[in-house]
Amino acid sequence: MALTNQKKPVIIGIVGDSGAGKTTFAAGLVHVLGPERTASICIDDYHRYSRADRAGMDITPHDPACNYVDILEQHVDLLRDGQPILKPVYNHHGGRLEPPEYVVPKDFIVLEGLLGYATPRLRDCFDVKFYMEPQEELRIRWKYQRDTGVGGYTAAEFAASLPLLNRDSALHIAPQRAYADMIVGFYPPDEAPEESGARLNVRHILRPTLPYLDLAPLLEVGADKGFDLELARDIDGRPVDALLISGTADGERSEEMEAYLWSLLPNGEARPEAIGQFIDAKGSTRHSHALALSQLVATHYLLNAALGENAV
Amino acid sequence: MALTNQKKPVIIGIVGDSGAGKTTFAAGLVHVLGPERTASICIDDYHRYSRADRAGMDITPHDPACNYVDILEQHVDLLRDGQPILKPVYNHHGGRLEPPEYVVPKDFIVLEGLLGYATPRLRDCFDVKFYMEPQEELRIRWKYQRDTGVGGYTAAEFAASLPLLNRDSALHIAPQRAYADMIVGFYPPDEAPEESGARLNVRHILRPTLPYLDLAPLLEVGADKGFDLELARDIDGRPVDALLISGTADGERSEEMEAYLWSLLPNGEARPEAIGQFIDAKGSTRHSHALALSQLVATHYLLNAALGENAV
Repeated sequence: MALTNQKKPVIIGIVGDSGAGKTTFAAGLVHVLGPERTASICIDDYHRYSRADRAGMDITPHDPACNYVDILEQHVDLLRDGQPILKPVYNHHGGRLEPPEYVVPKDFIVLEGLLGYATPRLRDCFDVKFYMEPQEELRIRWKYQRDTGVGGYTAAEFAASLPLLNRDSALHIAPQRAYADMIVGFYPPDEAPEESGARLNVRHILRPTLPYLDLAPLLEVGADKGFDLELARDIDGRPVDALLISGTADGERSEEMEAYLWSLLPNGEARPEAIGQFIDAKGSTRHSHALALSQLVATHYLLNAALGENAV
Repeated sequence: MALTNQKKPVIIGIVGDSGAGKTTFAAGLVHVLGPERTASICIDDYHRYSRADRAGMDITPHDPACNYVDILEQHVDLLRDGQPILKPVYNHHGGRLEPPEYVVPKDFIVLEGLLGYATPRLRDCFDVKFYMEPQEELRIRWKYQRDTGVGGYTAAEFAASLPLLNRDSALHIAPQRAYADMIVGFYPPDEAPEESGARLNVRHILRPTLPYLDLAPLLEVGADKGFDLELARDIDGRPVDALLISGTADGERSEEMEAYLWSLLPNGEARPEAIGQFIDAKGSTRHSHALALSQLVATHYLLNAALGENAV
């Protein structure tokens, strides 16, 4: 990851519905890429209205009209051009608009949020586009945990908010899946359908827009470590590769696999603990091998796509 | 002022020290040009720190380091290019940073504030650059009135704030005078040195960078209405034209002169009451003929400079 000759920042998109795990996934990516050379921007900061403003309106943050999409486009262009921006701030705790903050571009810029692929101009900005699509029941559990935690909603408010949100998600969020290069889908193992944490499996749909990466060495090393590649049919009927990572593989072997994937990255530093970390339903910080491996695989793909480095 | 063929907004600068009357002058210009085709932006909104932030720092808002000058440059470029911006907001009442607001460019953009001419990139943006330079005692009276009014300072806080402000004004504000096309200087008449309102005189220094406008017809009509042109020496020693407007001229004649200058503007609408309005020391809205005439003359000059219309 020697990027000193690089002229433009690499722009990485992480889009998906509310509660899909975008922020958690992004946080790990930042640590794989290196926080000192990676800026992480939450697209939800471009919400046009506070929660109080929205109370009297038939609109949700999932609707582009509820966001400064043209300003987001402008800011991503500026960052890509190496310019600083004065980014708006939306505080999820209370849903308040706050004073903006000054952001300087770094080598990598992770943009995560609801509407990253909403317009052609936005879609053109990204070097790699990820889409988070956990199993729907799991997403609702994750969203409930977040909204009734830091979000400050009551359980009743949470339930009341879902119909409008789901209407706007179907209209505005879900259609963005079509533009993703890789779709990251966490789901519970058959034997533990209520699992929402460390033992989740994850399936990566690799779209043809993703530059080719030879997975053979990875699959060979990972054969007994919960790695698998299978042919699948995407929801649009097209054939795709699906890379599976098991969340119930033996811990020691998963750990070896994390170390192996990390060793392939050319930065030569100690592997950060923050890779694979998530907040569980009780608010504790925990580690998921499948999440860590997913973040490491995603990084190999994004480096390959952005810099032409065939890292695996 | 038919501007439908115009491609880029006309950018008008009003710069000067704190309390120099920039906001009052700008408000009238907006009404001369037409509020529906004029956007007014306060450059002080680009303050980087709130009043509370600054309390522990040896810095004043008069220092470029206390402002997002690079973002201001970026935003002026965007506006000039016809793009919207998400402008930061500094609330002078309490000195708080607030959520940003969405601003769409219009045919005319008035940018008023402390540091409009602080960098070459900023100076290049303006079609016309005004600099407000009232008599210093008058400026301090105006500033006191504003700071202890809407600003919410006590008299003691006001007095305590002056030394640092004056240090930074000398370093950062005053040098910008050199870049102005026209310097607007209000001052009390000899017979009423305490005057701070409707009877102030105003002197306009016309710099050679201001495109030529034939003042002969104006001076002829204004001969007995408090208008005069004289040769003067600027503080840098160079000869300049100085256009004087008396604040103590006969009211009826001044009124005729306002109507005459308004009639020369090609918009054909009724003359707005807001031209020449200011807030007096008691907080009441009042009218100054000299201010109105100054705003009207300034508009003729700016239209001439920006659009090549020899309006007088």
